[in-house]
Amino acid sequence: MPDSLPITPRSKDYAQWYQDVIREGQLAEAAEVVRGCMVVRPHGWAIWEKIQSDMDRRFKATGHKNAAFPLLIPLSFLQKEAQHAEGFAMECAVVTHAGLRKNPTSGEIELKNELEEPYVVRPTSETIIGHFFAKWIDSYRDLPMLLNQWCNVMRWELRTRLFLRTGEFWWQEGHTAHATHQEAKEEVARMLDIYRDVYHDVLAVPVIRGAKTENERFAGALETFCVEALMQDGKALQGATSHDLGQNFGKAFNVTFQNKVGEREFVWQTSWGASTRMIGALIMSHSDDDGLVLPPKLAPIHVAIVPIYKNEAEKTSVMEAAQRIAAELKDDGLNVELDDRDEVRPGAKYFEWERKGVPLRLEIGPRDVAEKSALV
Amino acid sequence: MPDSLPITPRSKDYAQWYQDVIREGQLAEAAEVVRGCMVVRPHGWAIWEKIQSDMDRRFKATGHKNAAFPLLIPLSFLQKEAQHAEGFAMECAVVTHAGLRKNPTSGEIELKNELEEPYVVRPTSETIIGHFFAKWIDSYRDLPMLLNQWCNVMRWELRTRLFLRTGEFWWQEGHTAHATHQEAKEEVARMLDIYRDVYHDVLAVPVIRGAKTENERFAGALETFCVEALMQDGKALQGATSHDLGQNFGKAFNVTFQNKVGEREFVWQTSWGASTRMIGALIMSHSDDDGLVLPPKLAPIHVAIVPIYKNEAEKTSVMEAAQRIAAELKDDGLNVELDDRDEVRPGAKYFEWERKGVPLRLEIGPRDVAEKSALV
Repeated sequence: MPDSLPITPRSKDYAQWYQDVIREGQLAEAAEVVRGCMVVRPHGWAIWEKIQSDMDRRFKATGHKNAAFPLLIPLSFLQKEAQHAEGFAMECAVVTHAGLRKNPTSGEIELKNELEEPYVVRPTSETIIGHFFAKWIDSYRDLPMLLNQWCNVMRWELRTRLFLRTGEFWWQEGHTAHATHQEAKEEVARMLDIYRDVYHDVLAVPVIRGAKTENERFAGALETFCVEALMQDGKALQGATSHDLGQNFGKAFNVTFQNKVGEREFVWQTSWGASTRMIGALIMSHSDDDGLVLPPKLAPIHVAIVPIYKNEAEKTSVMEAAQRIAAELKDDGLNVELDDRDEVRPGAKYFEWERKGVPLRLEIGPRDVAEKSALV
Repeated sequence: MPDSLPITPRSKDYAQWYQDVIREGQLAEAAEVVRGCMVVRPHGWAIWEKIQSDMDRRFKATGHKNAAFPLLIPLSFLQKEAQHAEGFAMECAVVTHAGLRKNPTSGEIELKNELEEPYVVRPTSETIIGHFFAKWIDSYRDLPMLLNQWCNVMRWELRTRLFLRTGEFWWQEGHTAHATHQEAKEEVARMLDIYRDVYHDVLAVPVIRGAKTENERFAGALETFCVEALMQDGKALQGATSHDLGQNFGKAFNVTFQNKVGEREFVWQTSWGASTRMIGALIMSHSDDDGLVLPPKLAPIHVAIVPIYKNEAEKTSVMEAAQRIAAELKDDGLNVELDDRDEVRPGAKYFEWERKGVPLRLEIGPRDVAEKSALV
């Protein structure tokens, strides 16, 4: 891997600083060969896993269950809800062919079977889930239906920024169906509160709740609520959204239920989502000109220990102490990295862990062993 | 939801029995509107989450880290490794367009921008990961690189069966790079052993390890090893695979490293994967003519309690006892479902939990409350 590059100070170029923190923290990088898409590197994905795990626990505690719906959506589905189609159709990746073949003359691989109806790669799943809700929901007894999906989605964005806006991103999308508008509205508020709590308690990022204007609403929703976080450049960043879909998708996909008096009604739906953009918010809230800063709850590594020695004799005693300390900290439930790489200088090691946002770095040298201390 | 349908006995029609168990267990269903693809319903996905969680812990304990790579792969990437292209190109979903537009005359949505180079939806990720390995690996210090990805993949299969073979499926794909062939071979064996252990310890399904013949090898691999499970119909089912890729992808994507004496060498790679097909193996190993049977470690619900009462007085005492028992079992760490649905008959409830593979069903009626017993 290439050596570290400097991090541009925020005061000089905020956008470049953001990119530099991500690069030096080894969180993600532009895929380049796949337009507008990104690769989330292990350190970045480990942070996402921690956010996921916390959110998933909260969703399940409020009665939601996870499921998995198809990646591809028939093009005609997008057209069933007029506003939804206008909001999303323009930015979809479209699958038109299945299979390839080798051209017998040129040896090149070429497209084989053109599909009768193209599919779009899901930009969001209201339509395909609406189709299955119609199959699964028959009576008021089947309501509320409270589902969530952790998945990848694609929106063919022109201007992309790592974590904040990329062609493909990872998220959860909750989809629920209710017997009354009142219940659906309560669900919308409940999930918005969960997003606020996750930002506060887990990301340590203050957010405010708000409603989107008509122009900014989710395509097909009656109302869209959001949490917005204030970034270091003074700008607000949309952190998560929760939508009151009314009966719009119910009507488009004919999702009805028999109520307690035997009449058929359309269901009231909600959807709500938060994505890997949360990592962008996290970076822009806490990090500084030295690189990534992570709240302990989200740090994949809590403590990095950098042993310092000049010769074999020092190495033996220093490593012994470092291993003992590492073991004790692990017993306390912390994730500890003892950086025993011989070929990397202690300064470079320290620098690397700092840039990866490890909350606590310990330097242990021969004097520390003698004095039973450590440089924090 | 529709009422239960009968489960065809295995002796009558094994393939139909398999479908019926999945339908009645509410595990998954064919997406139908998305050719060859499936929807994994909450009960099925909860089982997958349990398998995932166990496997992920084992992968991490052996030093692997998770990352996320793009869903789309440039078509040209598939062509870089000749055997790989022949093995996969024929069954890929191909994205040829980005964005759609409304035809101003007809109002229909139509394709907008044709891409200069098509992308395929990943059938597996050796090629795109090879591209990033080449960027990230520079020195022997960067090796071994041990990555894993949990994701969806697509293979445009003609004949599909739920969980066993579908257009889209969910899996993990491990990808590693090593300095020597010996190390890579050890990795291949290590991961095969992990798969065997997961089948034995978690799925309670006996498997045997084996090597694939040349014809059956992964496209582009030197050798493919597998675990095979024996199903109730006497057929073997491939349960997971672990591939020795040699230097084939290293050469195709120019993944080199500087060794300890300063020379550049191609890396030695492995890949290994297990998918939602594991749920298919689970079904065909343990289930019977009454429906799904789950080993306790994988059961999303361990105990279902069905209260039985004829009037309000009985209901009060029965529900009190049922709630007390549910609370005690939850304290013991079990996942308990107290089925308090008023509108469903006890027999139908019992039947439903049995078909969902809940290991323990408790019926509690007034006599049980008096005698401090329960029908198991």
